[in-house]
Parts: sequence; structure tokens; C-alpha cells
Amino acid sequence: MSATHPAGTRTVFVLNGPNLNLLGKREPHIYGHETLADVEAECRRVAGELSLDIRFHQTNAEFQLIDWIHEAREQAAGIVINPAAFSHYSVAVLDALKACSFPILEVHISNIHQREEFRHHSFVSHVAAGVICGFGTQGYVFALQRLARLLAKPAT
Amino acid sequence: MSATHPAGTRTVFVLNGPNLNLLGKREPHIYGHETLADVEAECRRVAGELSLDIRFHQTNAEFQLIDWIHEAREQAAGIVINPAAFSHYSVAVLDALKACSFPILEVHISNIHQREEFRHHSFVSHVAAGVICGFGTQGYVFALQRLARLLAKPAT
Amino acid sequence: MSATHPAGTRTVFVLNGPNLNLLGKREPHIYGHETLADVEAECRRVAGELSLDIRFHQTNAEFQLIDWIHEAREQAAGIVINPAAFSHYSVAVLDALKACSFPILEVHISNIHQREEFRHHSFVSHVAAGVICGFGTQGYVFALQRLARLLAKPAT
Amino acid sequence: MSATHPAGTRTVFVLNGPNLNLLGKREPHIYGHETLADVEAECRRVAGELSLDIRFHQTNAEFQLIDWIHEAREQAAGIVINPAAFSHYSVAVLDALKACSFPILEVHISNIHQREEFRHHSFVSHVAAGVICGFGTQGYVFALQRLARLLAKPAT
Amino acid sequence: MSATHPAGTRTVFVLNGPNLNLLGKREPHIYGHETLADVEAECRRVAGELSLDIRFHQTNAEFQLIDWIHEAREQAAGIVINPAAFSHYSVAVLDALKACSFPILEVHISNIHQREEFRHHSFVSHVAAGVICGFGTQGYVFALQRLARLLAKPAT
Amino acid sequence: MSATHPAGTRTVFVLNGPNLNLLGKREPHIYGHETLADVEAECRRVAGELSLDIRFHQTNAEFQLIDWIHEAREQAAGIVINPAAFSHYSVAVLDALKACSFPILEVHISNIHQREEFRHHSFVSHVAAGVICGFGTQGYVFALQRLARLLAKPAT
Amino acid sequence: MSATHPAGTRTVFVLNGPNLNLLGKREPHIYGHETLADVEAECRRVAGELSLDIRFHQTNAEFQLIDWIHEAREQAAGIVINPAAFSHYSVAVLDALKACSFPILEVHISNIHQREEFRHHSFVSHVAAGVICGFGTQGYVFALQRLARLLAKPAT
Amino acid sequence: MSATHPAGTRTVFVLNGPNLNLLGKREPHIYGHETLADVEAECRRVAGELSLDIRFHQTNAEFQLIDWIHEAREQAAGIVINPAAFSHYSVAVLDALKACSFPILEVHISNIHQREEFRHHSFVSHVAAGVICGFGTQGYVFALQRLARLLAKPAT
Amino acid sequence: MSATHPAGTRTVFVLNGPNLNLLGKREPHIYGHETLADVEAECRRVAGELSLDIRFHQTNAEFQLIDWIHEAREQAAGIVINPAAFSHYSVAVLDALKACSFPILEVHISNIHQREEFRHHSFVSHVAAGVICGFGTQGYVFALQRLARLLAKPAT
Amino acid sequence: MSATHPAGTRTVFVLNGPNLNLLGKREPHIYGHETLADVEAECRRVAGELSLDIRFHQTNAEFQLIDWIHEAREQAAGIVINPAAFSHYSVAVLDALKACSFPILEVHISNIHQREEFRHHSFVSHVAAGVICGFGTQGYVFALQRLARLLAKPAT
Amino acid sequence: MSATHPAGTRTVFVLNGPNLNLLGKREPHIYGHETLADVEAECRRVAGELSLDIRFHQTNAEFQLIDWIHEAREQAAGIVINPAAFSHYSVAVLDALKACSFPILEVHISNIHQREEFRHHSFVSHVAAGVICGFGTQGYVFALQRLARLLAKPAT
Amino acid sequence: MSATHPAGTRTVFVLNGPNLNLLGKREPHIYGHETLADVEAECRRVAGELSLDIRFHQTNAEFQLIDWIHEAREQAAGIVINPAAFSHYSVAVLDALKACSFPILEVHISNIHQREEFRHHSFVSHVAAGVICGFGTQGYVFALQRLARLLAKPAT
Repeated sequence: MSATHPAGTRTVFVLNGPNLNLLGKREPHIYGHETLADVEAECRRVAGELSLDIRFHQTNAEFQLIDWIHEAREQAAGIVINPAAFSHYSVAVLDALKACSFPILEVHISNIHQREEFRHHSFVSHVAAGVICGFGTQGYVFALQRLARLLAKPAT
Repeated sequence: MSATHPAGTRTVFVLNGPNLNLLGKREPHIYGHETLADVEAECRRVAGELSLDIRFHQTNAEFQLIDWIHEAREQAAGIVINPAAFSHYSVAVLDALKACSFPILEVHISNIHQREEFRHHSFVSHVAAGVICGFGTQGYVFALQRLARLLAKPAT
Repeated sequence: MSATHPAGTRTVFVLNGPNLNLLGKREPHIYGHETLADVEAECRRVAGELSLDIRFHQTNAEFQLIDWIHEAREQAAGIVINPAAFSHYSVAVLDALKACSFPILEVHISNIHQREEFRHHSFVSHVAAGVICGFGTQGYVFALQRLARLLAKPAT
Repeated sequence: MSATHPAGTRTVFVLNGPNLNLLGKREPHIYGHETLADVEAECRRVAGELSLDIRFHQTNAEFQLIDWIHEAREQAAGIVINPAAFSHYSVAVLDALKACSFPILEVHISNIHQREEFRHHSFVSHVAAGVICGFGTQGYVFALQRLARLLAKPAT
Repeated sequence: MSATHPAGTRTVFVLNGPNLNLLGKREPHIYGHETLADVEAECRRVAGELSLDIRFHQTNAEFQLIDWIHEAREQAAGIVINPAAFSHYSVAVLDALKACSFPILEVHISNIHQREEFRHHSFVSHVAAGVICGFGTQGYVFALQRLARLLAKPAT
Repeated sequence: MSATHPAGTRTVFVLNGPNLNLLGKREPHIYGHETLADVEAECRRVAGELSLDIRFHQTNAEFQLIDWIHEAREQAAGIVINPAAFSHYSVAVLDALKACSFPILEVHISNIHQREEFRHHSFVSHVAAGVICGFGTQGYVFALQRLARLLAKPAT
Repeated sequence: MSATHPAGTRTVFVLNGPNLNLLGKREPHIYGHETLADVEAECRRVAGELSLDIRFHQTNAEFQLIDWIHEAREQAAGIVINPAAFSHYSVAVLDALKACSFPILEVHISNIHQREEFRHHSFVSHVAAGVICGFGTQGYVFALQRLARLLAKPAT
Repeated sequence: MSATHPAGTRTVFVLNGPNLNLLGKREPHIYGHETLADVEAECRRVAGELSLDIRFHQTNAEFQLIDWIHEAREQAAGIVINPAAFSHYSVAVLDALKACSFPILEVHISNIHQREEFRHHSFVSHVAAGVICGFGTQGYVFALQRLARLLAKPAT
Repeated sequence: MSATHPAGTRTVFVLNGPNLNLLGKREPHIYGHETLADVEAECRRVAGELSLDIRFHQTNAEFQLIDWIHEAREQAAGIVINPAAFSHYSVAVLDALKACSFPILEVHISNIHQREEFRHHSFVSHVAAGVICGFGTQGYVFALQRLARLLAKPAT
Repeated sequence: MSATHPAGTRTVFVLNGPNLNLLGKREPHIYGHETLADVEAECRRVAGELSLDIRFHQTNAEFQLIDWIHEAREQAAGIVINPAAFSHYSVAVLDALKACSFPILEVHISNIHQREEFRHHSFVSHVAAGVICGFGTQGYVFALQRLARLLAKPAT
Repeated sequence: MSATHPAGTRTVFVLNGPNLNLLGKREPHIYGHETLADVEAECRRVAGELSLDIRFHQTNAEFQLIDWIHEAREQAAGIVINPAAFSHYSVAVLDALKACSFPILEVHISNIHQREEFRHHSFVSHVAAGVICGFGTQGYVFALQRLARLLAKPAT
Repeated sequence: MSATHPAGTRTVFVLNGPNLNLLGKREPHIYGHETLADVEAECRRVAGELSLDIRFHQTNAEFQLIDWIHEAREQAAGIVINPAAFSHYSVAVLDALKACSFPILEVHISNIHQREEFRHHSFVSHVAAGVICGFGTQGYVFALQRLARLLAKPAT
């Protein structure tokens, strides 16, 4: 698929799925104590170092996530996404991502392979260039760094 | 399980499973063009920055991998492992890792979720703190950085 | 179930699920080059010939789709629906359709049986009178023609 | 998980999922003739007897349901939920409920075990203290009464 | 099936399956501290209020349970049953219940959906009008109240 | 695969599988009252409008169906096929169709997704450009119209 | 389905599927030593006693079996069928039998439940009034006797 | 296995499993109107003709059925058994039958292959010489006749 | 679970499930030639050496087995059980054993993993401290010796 | 099974299933460019060297294949068979082959294990002495050579 | 299979699979505190009593285990094996054991049926005379005693 | 993948997996009486005729097999491999073979499709050009002949 986003753009969408607004409040033994605001701050700091322009969002609504992906499709150079629960059933999110021609990196804060059976499969992994899970919120940082690398030179 | 490794050690074993000696030569559309020597060099460079002491190994022999894990168990502060094909059937490697009380990080160069069905499950993921796949050889770097973070303060 | 819609109505809802707003832009090797506006125009042209009154909608939001189905339930004589990704998991859309007492026709632009395994099953097919897939956007036209026939005389 | 809601609150959220706005209109052989307004009235009457303060909602939107659960999390002493179709696929609703530290009671008007195979499993049951199905709309009343009992003394 | 029980009877069989004689003694973290005698007393109290005539039994023998169901078939207006372990394999109990033309309500003290996989399916649910689980021993009370309602007017 | 049929041919084979000779006689609640002769007449009428040359056949013999497909392979521009029961097990029919380089359209009179589980999968769908089911005998007409469109311009 | 065969007919088709022409020659430890001619003779003898008129056939061709079923449909009062291997995959034979409105009895000489897994399911059993297996060739006799009983008075 | 029963015995046990005491009363659309007493009378009549000595029993208790099989093992020349619900789960009944060295014939009044999925498999079929289902109560008669034949000359 | 049996008791229940009364008579190629009386004698001899007090029982009745387990629960220091066929389906026996707080040892005379598929899973193994199969009747002896060891010092 | 074919016969049937008449024309990337006539010629040449007498046939009809196997059964010393699509569902062909007492060798031109899932299982492999696939048309030659070896001395 | 080992030999190989060198150090809550040296000492003591000659080995290498089994095949009278993780996937170890004509006894220290699903199946159990698990290290002793018994007189 | 082996090389590796050193000694009813030395001799004889240069190896060690494949990768023109037990689980061997750009032929002496279920799937078949099984040791000869043909002209 030919790229649809403007050549040379350094914009990256960092998208967060349902219940991540509770980060740091919900099940801290699984997700840790950092809040999503902490994550956003850290992402902005790292993006600065990488000369990336961050668009950071969270939503509990599948359609909102799809709309942002459609936007990213035209404006961004890549997506870092933590699809949370949507990973496991939202074919609609998968289809939205399939329409993107730039790299997508999938982040899960916890190691989903050590949780319930139904969390072991992610539809987003069908289309993500890379997947990182169980690296805590540091996974976002690594995903951004990877994206920067991929923008510099395609795949390694 | 109580820790068995010496307190304060900064040694990390970076272990590579079967066929990774062919890295850069085998199926470059999947694994890229870097060789394992390149990976080792990069790991040593990053380890230097992180004040980690690297033990870097590759083997095609399951028993050798197990023996190194047993060694690490007594000498190291963590393991970064790319178990390659062993991920999918070697319960023996899983059991060796289960005997370790420090963090284990699992690396796959390609996104195993986009390959054959039998590569979607990894026994090593049952015990790894985190899993990173499809980040190319950069996955090793991020795993080392994560390990350094975990050694500094447990889990986030 | 007794009909709830006004007797003699010729209104038909043509409903489109998530990501169809990208039609003609996304994966043209699968979905072709026509846009959803083209489809709407063609539907309106055919509806004119068939003396049907068209309500044409697209949404990425499951709730919006449900709300339109509820509306149709009271105002329409039938539904032509391309549920897209919702086909495969939205029991809520199925339940909304189950509450309708008029014919429902399901359209997929591509042949879903030649795509990923998870696209082979559609919940909407449980309740649709007919299903057409792989007929490109012409499927909408045939669905409207079928509906006109069913309104003239029930089932053949 | 430590409780997040104010001590001593008697507020209970009664939450209803998609298509329940059609209650009494849709498939009466399965769901009976009472409307959701009737259910709300009955719940309010019983809540009065139990000195509970009711927040009664219905939505076709998954995100709205999640938002209410997040609200309840901070303001309520328990949730009575009829997740309807969301029971069977919405991991996002499950995750929202998992973030609550008070009792959750799950209600289905019909006996879901006598309906289609895909309705036999409910994600909400993973986290609900109790599940009641096939008790018609009376299930809501019993759920409220159970909640009152649990607020008086934890579990029996 | 035509009713076989005497018109106007208010007799209800409350039947309990294997190991429920240990109630209050076995696994209290799952089943609580009330004994079966406590349950019977509570059932009798509630039945009094509802003008129902209770026959309360417990057995570890499948044939005994079947015989009581056969008796109920001719003498009772309904059955409240906690089939315990028999739920999961006794097709013979299912067949006995299938021969009854009055309402059957199924009670489980714990939430069986949060226990071992093999406890998630109950043969009795194939024929029960309603199922209540995880409501502790209060489930019996609600089942009796539901039965009284159903005797007053069929299904809601 | 390079086309084997003569350039510019307008011949279309309309092939019908086993038991379709009973159409209009067998299970009219599923298949309606029209006979196969009615279907042939309607197909010929429509083909006339579309300037297609029809070869209309029915057989209960798998080998006969295969032979006709082989013939079509050399003489026709497309196939409309209602494989009936053969859909579900005849790999031999699938293989015959795989040897054709022109478009194939699959028709089922009833909605096979609402019938027995074993009718939900069709081997012919692996190779058909499009599939239409539950449109009654009108499905044949739409398949011919689609074929005419595809002959005019490949895929939409 | 209304009966299609002439009222009062006493004709019964006894139909035998593939490889039964080898009866008595093939795998005698499974099928015994009687030949199909012996079976036919015995069937004719018993039919005489029952005043039934027998049409006895064997074929290795699925289409021939279907054609005979279609004939029986118009001329007979019942079918006794040993579908042999076709039992396990021929949906076409099932569909032919589904078009019959008289009783069908299925015979297998050996006990198919003690043979390979794939022989445990028979499509013909979906539509047969009764199934008899492992009664040797005597199964044909009992099937004829059952048919005579069913013709005298429907079902017991 | 060497025979344990007395040479030349003509005793046959006709054993009936749970709920068959309700025969003629329970679900007559499935099981018909004859009672078990009718069946016993018919069996005795036929046994007389065949010079067999009948022991006819019914029980709802698995242990009782096992005890009778153990008795038959020492006193009888064969067993006709309608295991009813026990067919589907009682490995204990299977094991008792496995200890018998004479022929066992399995009878089901209805065609179990047209009922719920879980009724399609019978453990008793693993060891029965023959299985007859859907022949109504006439199945008992045929089973006795088969047994007489097998006693006269082993297997056909 | 706190222990319910009297401190210091040396009583052990040796319980045998259905058909074991036929031991030495049934299928000697699987179970050998020793009778259950032989086994009891051997157990008593060994128990004498170990200063254990044996209660040795066999039953074909599930309820009887449950009742003995309930007795053991209050009087014994451990159970050695050969559940025979009950292993594979009796959740009721499992539940009875779950109510015991002392060690349970499971014995199978034959190696159940080399027999039919359905014998490979034992519910009793969910709760047994140890399982021994294929050691013939010697398995009982070893189970008693193990129990004696466990009574002396918990687990090794 | 005792041999039925004449002692000392050197006749071998080489049988080809459906669509193999298209060999060299259909999907050459899978099956190569040789025609079936080429294969026959090569087989005759090799048979000459091996002093075998070849009967070479192809058919699209299952019954014809069965008839030839029945003929071979009486006249031949072995069968080389490429069952093509019939491999995967024709139990009737399997049964015909089971009636043969001489060696059967199965040939597939392509490696069926690298094609669609449903081609991985062949019923013919249940009875074939050997199976060769992916050796192109040379597989026929090797099968004939193997047969000659087996006729000279049984199995190696 | 004819025996390959020298007549009258009393040599027994006690073989231990991967990670058992960590015994007493790894996961003591599962495997206890005894080391493998303790086990060897105990085995030697018991072997002395039984006049057996012990060869005690441990390895993490599959090939080494196979080589020892091959040696045992020629020198020993039996094998006691704790295959550890190899139980669950090493078909090669199974095949080596299949080549032995003497008794094999399988030991697992923990009760593998209470651990992860993938540990419930052991390939070694396909060929072992007996299996003992969850008896701690005492399982080795019992296995040796069983072997001594089997050497004295074959099977009981 | 571009070839890595020297142009024009006629070297072929013939590799044998675990337990094949026992050939002729182990289970002769399955594998025959020839030893691996016999096979090697025959291979050398045939290779001579074909002007191939043979490297013949056997190992019980997976790593050794992998190492030889890596060697072959650089020195050989093809591989004939009998992976024995490794076929069924060694993804590592598959991965090694995947790194080769020349033809691979897979040999099994017995017909693995007639053995245990777990032997029906071979990972090596995913990558082998051809597979031959059940041709005894003659399979090696045919594999070499096939390889010679493929070296002469690619695929047929």
C-alpha cells in the first residue's frame, strides 16, 4: 500500500485503549503505580530527544480509537498503541490499523501471556511490526525509540 | 524463591538458541542482515553504558542452554534470552529458567505472531518478566535496558 | 414477531459498519476503488428505479449502528447491512437485528471465506434472510433488488 | 484491592447493556412484557425498602457502560449489572469491573444456558460475586437484596 | 407436557445433592459457615411467608435424588435444586427433571464460573427455568420466592 | 494461470448439483416452490438481456459435474454454480474449479449459515469470486448479472 | 412434508451402498460370510411374510443411490438403507433422503462404534427413524419388520 | 476371556437404566405411550417363543445395575440393556459389562443421534455386539431375537 | 483447611471403587490374578508392620464411597483409594475428597495411560498427594508405606 | 486376509483419481508440465524393465475407481494409486482398498503437507504400504519399483 | 520383542532427566529439599537390600539419556526413569525406550496432574509398565522394589 | 533465497535422526532387519551410479543434526533426511533446514500415518520438496534418485 501520510512527517500517535485512564489506580500488582499522565510525560520527554512530535490519547470508546487511527493514517509517520482489552476482540481496530502504511508498535504493560487464556491472542499483533509486553510503562519508551529507528531506515 | 546469585552482581547472561549462529545469513527478509557478532557488539556497547557485565552465548544444543542457565542462576543478576525454536517445545529450558529467581527477558527478532501457528506460543513466556518481538536486533538492547532498570528498582 | 414498522412503508436503511468510510482508499486489492459516496449514489439510483426510499449511513461506532437499527425497526421495511468487522464479534448488533421483524440482507464486498479464519463466521448471518459476499459494491444493488422483491411477495 | 468508594455509601449502580431499551418490545417470548421503565420503578421501590440509593442506567454504547463503572468505582457500594450482549465479548467491560473493589452482581433476564452456544459464557461472571439468570426481571430485585445483605456483612 | 401434579398444590421440593451434608464444614472459604440445617430452617421460614409447603432433602446418592424428583413430579408444584457435583455429569438427573412439567430452579452456593473449567457447565441448566449461583445460601430463598411468583402467574 | 477458454466467448455454464432436480418439490419451506425448469427459464431470459449464452445443467453425479467444469474450462467465460451438497465435501469439484481461469460465482438458494453446522463451510467458496445465499432462486439472476459485469471489466 | 408416494403402496426399497457387492468376500471377521445375494434372498422371504414388495439394489455410485432414493420417493412406502461408506460423508445422500416423507431405517452390519473414529458419525442417522448396527445381516430383517409395523401404525 | 456362565443356560437379563420406570409417562413424543410393564410383557412373550428365560429389571441406581450385570455374568447367556442416561457417562457400567464374556445388545427406544450432542456417544457401545436405536420398544424384541440367533451360532 | 480427624490417629481407609469385587476374575491380562481378598490381606500385613489401622472397603455405589470418605474425614489419618471407573467422571467423589485435610493416595492397578483415551484423566488426581498406576496390586502397599511416611513427617 | 488374486500374476493397476486428466494443463506450478499420457508412457517403460504388466486408468468418477479396485482385487498383484482429491474424503475408496490383500502404494505428485490443511490427511494412507508425495511424476516410477521389490520378497 | 540384555543380569539403570541436578535447590515447595545425591544414596541402599546393581545417572542432554537407554538395552534388566521435562515432548526418548524389552518404571517427584496442563501427558507413560508421581523421592524406592518383584516373576 | 552452496557440487548429505543406530535391532516388525550400515552401503552404491558424493551420518543429538545441516548448507547440493522422532517436535531442525536453498527429501522407513496420532505430523514436511514413507530402506534410494533428477533439472 502506498503511504498516505505526508512525506517527512515526524508525528507519532500514541494511542491507549479502554481502562488505561485508571492506570496507577487499577490492579497495581499487575500494572504498577505510574499514572497515564506519567506515561505521557515520559513519552513527551523521550519524543523530544528523538525529534518526534507526539499525539497522546486515551479512550474507552472503540470508535474514538478508530477515528484517531484514521487521522494518524493521514498525518502521522507511525503509531504506538496499547490497545488494552480491545486487543482481544476488536476486529474493527485491526481493520483500521490495516489501512495504515506506516509502522505500528504494540505495547502491553503486563506480560499478557501470564494472564487469562483469552488475553494470549491479540488481533493487533497481526499487523504490528513489533510487540512488547511485560516491560511496564518503559515499553512505550522502547516503542518510540524503535519507531525513530524505523523512520531513519526501514526494518532491521 | 530466595535469590541464589551473589548480591550486587551486575552480570547478565545473553543467551541465544538454535540457528541464531546463522543470523544475517538465513532468511534475511525475516531476520534482517545483522550477524550475531553485530548483535554481541551492540549488546556489549550498551552494557558498557549500563555498567552491566555481559556473558554472551549461542548454542544449537538444548543441554548447553540449560547448563548456561544453571550457571547464570548462581552468577548472574538476570537473563536476556532469545530461545529461538526452543521457545515452542523445550519444557526443559522452561524448567531451567523456573529455577532462577532473577528477572528474565525474552527476545524474538521477528514478530512470531505473524508466522506459523506453532510459533505463537512460547513456553519461555510463562516465566519471562517481559517479552519483546518484532523489534529486530534492537530488542536485545531494550531488554538490557529494562534489566538495568529492574536491577535498580524491582518492577514498574 | 409482529411487525413494528408502518404498513406500506418503502423506506430501507442501508447501514455500513466500521472503516467503510475508507472504502476506495483502504486495501484496494481487496475492496476495489469505489468510494462509499459512489456506493451511496449507486444505491440511490437503483432505489429510485425500485421506488424505495433510502436511508444511507456509515459509522465506526457500534452504538450508533444499534441506534439506527432501532430506528429502522420503527420506520423501515427492511435493512441492507454491511456490518464489516462487527460481523465477527458484535453480539449487540445481532441482538438489535433480532428485534426487527422485516427482512435483513447482509453484504460483504470481498469474499470473506477467502480471508483470515476469524472472518468466516458472521453473527449477522444468524438473522439475515440472505448473504452476499465477493460481489464487490454491486452486492448492495442486488440486496436492494432482493428487498424490493421480498416486499412485493414474501420469500421465494 | 483497597476500596476506593466512600465508606458508608449506600449508592448502587444498576447498569443495563445494549438493546435493553427495547425490553418488553423485543422477543417477548424470551424477555417478557415488562419495559425497562417498569424494571427501574421496581428497583427503586425495593431500593427504598433496603435504604439503598439507586443509579439506574441503560446504554447501547460500551464506552458509556465503562464510564459508569468508573464512576461507580468512586461513588458506589456495589453494582448490579445486566451486561446483555456485552457479556459474551467485551473484555473492556470486564476490565472496568475488575478495577472495582465492591461486590458486583450479574443479572440475565432469560436463562442464557438454554440459548445459543455463544451465550453460555459471560466474561462478567469472571468477576461477579453472583450470577442470576432466567429469573425474569425479578432477578434485579434479588440482586439488590443480595447486595444489601453483602453490605451488611461480607459474604455468606 | 401436561402437568402431572395435583392442581393447586403448594408443595415444593428443595433437593440437595452430594456432599451438601458437609455444608459449613467443607471449604468454608467457598461455601461459607452455614450448615444445611441452617439452610433448611431459613427455607422453612420463607416458605411459611409464601404459603409454600416444603419438602427438604439431601442425599449423596444419585438414585435417591432421582426418586425424589419422580415423587415431586406427582406431588409438587415445583423444585428448587442444588445438584452440587451431579450438575456436571448426571444425565440421569437431567432426564428425571425433564419428566417434570412444573418450574425448576437451580441453585449453586458458590459462583461456579469462577471455579474449575469442568464446573462451568451444568446439565440441570438445560431444563431449569432459572439458575442462581454465588448468592450463598440466600440463593435458596430467592429461588423459593421466584417459585411462588411463577405459581401465582406463569413466567415474567 | 493463463486463460484457456476462447477469447471473447460469452458462454456461461450454469451448473447445479445433487437433488436440485427436486427443486420446488423438496422442503419448500427451505427452497421455495419454483422448479429447476423455472430457474432455467429465468436464467435464459436474463442471459438474453445480458447477451450471454447459457449452458444449463443439473446432475446428481459428482463426476458429471467435474466433466462439465472441464468442458467449461475450454469453452466458457465463466461458471455460475449451485454445488448443493457437494459444497461441503467434494474436494474433487473444488479441484476441477481450481483449474479454471475465469470467474466462478457460487449460489445457494437458502441461507446455509442458518442450517446445520456442517453446511456452514463450502469448499467451492475457496475458489469462487463471490458467494450468494438465501436470495432464493433470484441468486442465479444476480450471479449472471455479476458475471456480465466482470466480463465487461475485471473485478470492482 | 406431505407424502409423495401412492397411498397404500407396500413397496420398500432396500438400498445398499459401496463395496457391499463384496459382502462375504471382504473382511469376513467384520462382515461375516453371507453374500449380498444371501441377504437379498432373506429379505425377500421376510418381505413375503410381511406382504411387502421389495426393490433390492446395490451400487458403488453415489448418484445411482440418489436416483433410487428419488424413485422410492414417488413409488415406495419406506426405505431400508445400508449406506456403507457413504454414511460418513455423503451429504448428497442425506439430502435425497430428507426429501422423502416416509420412514427410513438405517442398517450397518458391523458395530460402527467399535471401528475407526470417522465411522462413528453417520449423516443418514440425522434423518433415519431408526438405526441398527452390529446385528449382522439380521439387521435387514429387523428393519423390514419395523417398517411393516410403522406402516400399520405410525411410530411407537 | 473364558466364559463364566453355566454352559447351555438360556437365561437372559433384560436391564433398564434410570427413568425408564416413567416409560409411557415421560415425553411421549420421544418415547411413545407403552409402559415398561408393556415392554416386559412383550419381552416375556417373545422369550417364550425363543425358549429364553428372562430376568427383567429396571433401576435408577447405577450400583444396582452393576450388581445385576455381575449376577448375569455368572448366571446368564446374554444381556439386553437399555442403559438410558448411564450410556453417556457411566464408565462403571461399561467396566461391569466388559467383565462379561457373552453377547450384549444395546437398545435405545429413541434415535439418540437426533437428540442433544451429548447423547450421541454411548460407552456401552464400546462393548455391545450390536446397537439398536429409534425402533421404539420393538428394539427389545429384535435384541432378544438376535441373542437367540447368537446363542444358536456365534456371530454372522 | 484445619484437620478434622482426631490427632494421633493411625487409622487409614483403603477404599475401592466399582467392579473391583471382580478383581482376579475380570480381564486378568489387565488386572492380574490376585483377588481383592488377597489385596486386603496384603494391606493388613503391611499395615501391621507400619502400625497403621486399616479400614478396607469396596463398593459399586458412588454414594457408599462418598459416605466412607465422609467417615474417614472424621476418623482417619489418610485415605488410599482405587476409585476405578469413578476416577473418570465422579465429581461427587472428588468433592468428598476435597473436604478431607489429610493425605490421599490414588492407586490404579493397570497403567491407565495405555488404555482408552477417556481413562487418561482422573478427577481424583486433582486432590491426591500422589498417584501410582501400573504397579499391580503392589501399588496399594506402596501407597500405605507412603502414607506412613507422610504421617511421620509432612511431604518430602 | 487370504490373497484373492491369481498366484504369480505380475499385473499391476495404476489408478488415477479426479482431475488428473488435466495433468500438465492445470496449475503447472504445483503439478508440473507432464501430461498423464507422459506418465503412462513412463510407467509402461519402467514396467517393461520390471516385467510388470500395467493397467493404467484415470477417472473422475468414484464408482469407476472402486470398480477398478474390485477388478484389481481379483486380477492384480498390487495397486499404485494417486487418489487425488478422493484421498481426503472418500471412505468408499478406502473400503474398496481394504478388501485387497496385496500391497498398495499411494502417490501424490505435489507435497500435500505444504498445501491446504484439509489435504494433510489421506484416508488411503490408512491402508497403503507406502506413501510418496512431492516427488513429481517420478513418484509413480518409484512406486512401481517398490512394488516389484515387494513382489520379489515381502516387506523390508 | 526378544530380550537383548544378558540373562540373569541384576543391573538396573536409574536415569534422571534435565534440571534434576538442581533437586533440593529448585522450587522446594514442589520438589522437596532432598538433593539428587540423597536420592542416589537411598537408591543404592535399597538396591543393596534387593540385590540389584544400580547405574545412577543424570543429564540435561536428550542424546545422553538416549545413549544410556541404548546401553541399558544391552546390559540391564530394567530401567527406572524420571524423564522430567522430556516426558512431555521427547518422542526420541520414547523411541529409545520402545527398543527395550524389559520393564520400565516412570517416576515423577511431584504430582504432575496438579501442575500446568502441558505436564499432564507423558510420552514415557506410553511404554512404562508403571507410573508413580507425587510420592516425592520415595517414588524411586518403590520403583526399584517393583522392578525387583517383576524380575522375580513377570507382572501381577 | 540465493544458493549458498558451491555451484556444481554433487555432494549430498544423508542424515539420520535418533535411534536409527538401532535399525535392524529395534522393532523389526516396523522397521525391518536391515541395519544402518546396510542402508549406508546401499546409498553409497546408488550414489556411485548417480555420480553423487555421499556424506552419511546418524546422531541421537539434535544439535549435531543441526550442525550437519549447517555444514550441508555450505557444502552440499541437497539433503536426504530421516529425522525419525525429531520430525514430530524439533522446530530447531525445521529452522536449520529452512536456511537451506537446495532440495530436501524426507524419508521414513515405516508408514507414519498408520502409527500413533502424534507421528502423523512432521515439521520437516513443511520444508521438504518430497516425502516418502513406508517404502522401507528403499526410500533412501528413491530419495537419492530424485535428488539426482532435481539437480539435473529443477522440479517436474
